[in-house]
Amino acid sequence: MSPDGGSARADFKVGLLGFGTVGSAFSELLEERAGEIARFNGRRPVVCGVLTRSRGSFEEILSQADLLVELIGGIEPAKGYLLSAMRAGKDVVSANKQLLSQHGEELFETAREHGVRLRFEAAVAGAVPVVRVLEESLAATPIERIHGIVNGTTNYILTEMTLGSTYAEALAEAQRSGYAEADPSDDVSGRDAAAKMAILARLAFGTPVHLDDVRYEGIDHLHGDDLQYARELGLGLKLVGTAERRQGGLSVHVHPTFLYAGHPLSSVSGAFNAVTVESATITEITLSGPGAGGLQTASAVLGDVVSVMTGGARPPAPPLPLRLVEDVESAYYLHLDVVDRPGVLASVMQVLGEQEVSIRSVVQRGLGENARLVMVTHPVLESSLRIAVEKLSGFDFVRSPPRTIRVIEEEFL
Amino acid sequence: MSPDGGSARADFKVGLLGFGTVGSAFSELLEERAGEIARFNGRRPVVCGVLTRSRGSFEEILSQADLLVELIGGIEPAKGYLLSAMRAGKDVVSANKQLLSQHGEELFETAREHGVRLRFEAAVAGAVPVVRVLEESLAATPIERIHGIVNGTTNYILTEMTLGSTYAEALAEAQRSGYAEADPSDDVSGRDAAAKMAILARLAFGTPVHLDDVRYEGIDHLHGDDLQYARELGLGLKLVGTAERRQGGLSVHVHPTFLYAGHPLSSVSGAFNAVTVESATITEITLSGPGAGGLQTASAVLGDVVSVMTGGARPPAPPLPLRLVEDVESAYYLHLDVVDRPGVLASVMQVLGEQEVSIRSVVQRGLGENARLVMVTHPVLESSLRIAVEKLSGFDFVRSPPRTIRVIEEEFL
Repeated sequence: MSPDGGSARADFKVGLLGFGTVGSAFSELLEERAGEIARFNGRRPVVCGVLTRSRGSFEEILSQADLLVELIGGIEPAKGYLLSAMRAGKDVVSANKQLLSQHGEELFETAREHGVRLRFEAAVAGAVPVVRVLEESLAATPIERIHGIVNGTTNYILTEMTLGSTYAEALAEAQRSGYAEADPSDDVSGRDAAAKMAILARLAFGTPVHLDDVRYEGIDHLHGDDLQYARELGLGLKLVGTAERRQGGLSVHVHPTFLYAGHPLSSVSGAFNAVTVESATITEITLSGPGAGGLQTASAVLGDVVSVMTGGARPPAPPLPLRLVEDVESAYYLHLDVVDRPGVLASVMQVLGEQEVSIRSVVQRGLGENARLVMVTHPVLESSLRIAVEKLSGFDFVRSPPRTIRVIEEEFL
Repeated sequence: MSPDGGSARADFKVGLLGFGTVGSAFSELLEERAGEIARFNGRRPVVCGVLTRSRGSFEEILSQADLLVELIGGIEPAKGYLLSAMRAGKDVVSANKQLLSQHGEELFETAREHGVRLRFEAAVAGAVPVVRVLEESLAATPIERIHGIVNGTTNYILTEMTLGSTYAEALAEAQRSGYAEADPSDDVSGRDAAAKMAILARLAFGTPVHLDDVRYEGIDHLHGDDLQYARELGLGLKLVGTAERRQGGLSVHVHPTFLYAGHPLSSVSGAFNAVTVESATITEITLSGPGAGGLQTASAVLGDVVSVMTGGARPPAPPLPLRLVEDVESAYYLHLDVVDRPGVLASVMQVLGEQEVSIRSVVQRGLGENARLVMVTHPVLESSLRIAVEKLSGFDFVRSPPRTIRVIEEEFL
């Protein structure tokens, strides 16, 4: 008998690739929780080897381990290690969003071929169990749409901007508080969120989605007065990733987006993440929590290890290809910097009308040379809006490039 | 080859006990999703038999089924059927919160003894996957506290009252809209929420918790002016269930509770449910969505069936007894209907001071015979507050019984 009162079954050996912030937090958490895990599963998890740049042998760790945890990040050598491990029949856990969003199909295919488990809860939204929920709900529930705030850095910056900071001030504050890196371009460009949406879309819709399939737009070009007008219109501004069935296909994109106050994502503030899943059978559920920190990520990785130990994970199913749709309908906020003179509003409305852009609300601000028209449209095809915006840019009374931001309407309440 | 392109493995036979709203929705959903489930799992789920009061034989269904789904509700005959099925080595799925909160240990013990799976996602919060998340996170994460809005009827009524309705008007509206039953006592007394909190507490803390261990208080005695004052103090009112580690033991209770605006449960409105899980490693995650409707419940039941099919569920672990703690600290809202004359406030403060009740904010309203003192305290033991309230009731200048409501402070942000 072991001290836990369980059986004398052998330890469950975990090989650890990478030992940075997350790797060391994971190793510590595993040791702390090993007794409790053994009580549930009969086997005690132990780290049987650690590979870093300066120590450890991959071959040796592979031969000993029951499961490999990859916390190196980036494409290579992480990809090579994961493929080798799966080909050797080992289950693997990874927190690597770059790799999964760019080489996911190769990884899934290898897992399927060798009948092993590939788990990656920590790659999206830290400890918020969205990967698990999507994976396990998929077979029972046909998902229609996912909206996600999946980048804590940009949500922190937008929250600060809503409170009155400029973009530059908010970014500096995020860097001071550890919520943004010295080079924040991957976050503020929307690319990090796009990678996570590619992973979520793959899970929710069972179809291959590569990072390159995801259209994204960042937050670095946003103006403080857009947020100001938005408040007046009763809207909040978030960087929202969307994956949804549209026109018989799938649309995946990340954009700064205005949300009505009643939307479940509109109250998500600071560095938090949240994902909303919509389907006809469940209506809509929302999962939220802190974005990735070392401890949250380590906790999600350990959860994946436990799932494999309990047999709860399965090899991925074969993909079910869906056509990717680029041009979809959305409501838009439209900001025009115009000279206030007779006939301007009529000209603007005529151009919008020609493209079938209909207006839900309009506010005119300022006088003479400083007038601005701020509008929210009804849903319109993005391509139609782009044509209208291009035409509006050509008028001499439009004094700076028109600005557009997507709006999610409160359709579900 | 089957038409799904999968293997020719035998169908997965589901025996269905009960065929009311949820049972028929489940049966329909199962048929609709069978192909997709087969694609993932290799086996196609089919309903092999249905037991109702007027048709079907339990013994026959039991002998044929791979798994039994119990949607009868109530204690007997549901309990007898589930125990028989597990003793015959069959996995079971149930949506029965009464049974699980009152006879959970006997069911868990039987499942453990016979090495079968017992799943019950649909018993709490409809399609919100809180059971699954707690169950699977337990081994990896030491949970400190759960807060839940787990009764949609009362949340709907409180939302209406916040918008200005009286309790009676809000209840009538809930009944008209199908959110409350003709006899709403199980909901408005807090008993339904208490049953669900017993189930969640069992999962989160691995310790036996019976419905009788849960102290609960309903919403039928609330006054409209409590909600009015709360708004002035920046608080919202919800029926909140709490399960938390306290003084080395566990405290589980359900009370009307004021929440600060930043709390993740404060924005949950209408018939929605939400659960917040706090732990040192994950900080705090929140799951929210619509409370139980027929289709949501059916979808959660089907998710459980799929989990069993994929081997993702395990028999329950042995319980880890924790002492149940009744007298815990909380901040309180305190409403006193007083005669406004010199010395009253001093007398009130002296009584509160003697019981170490310290005041965070106080508002005095009205004049002369119609004065009211509305206070929010710092955290204080419930027993101390009760003594203070009893003493205050004895003063001749206190004109009606003092009213108290718990307050959850914004400690996590």
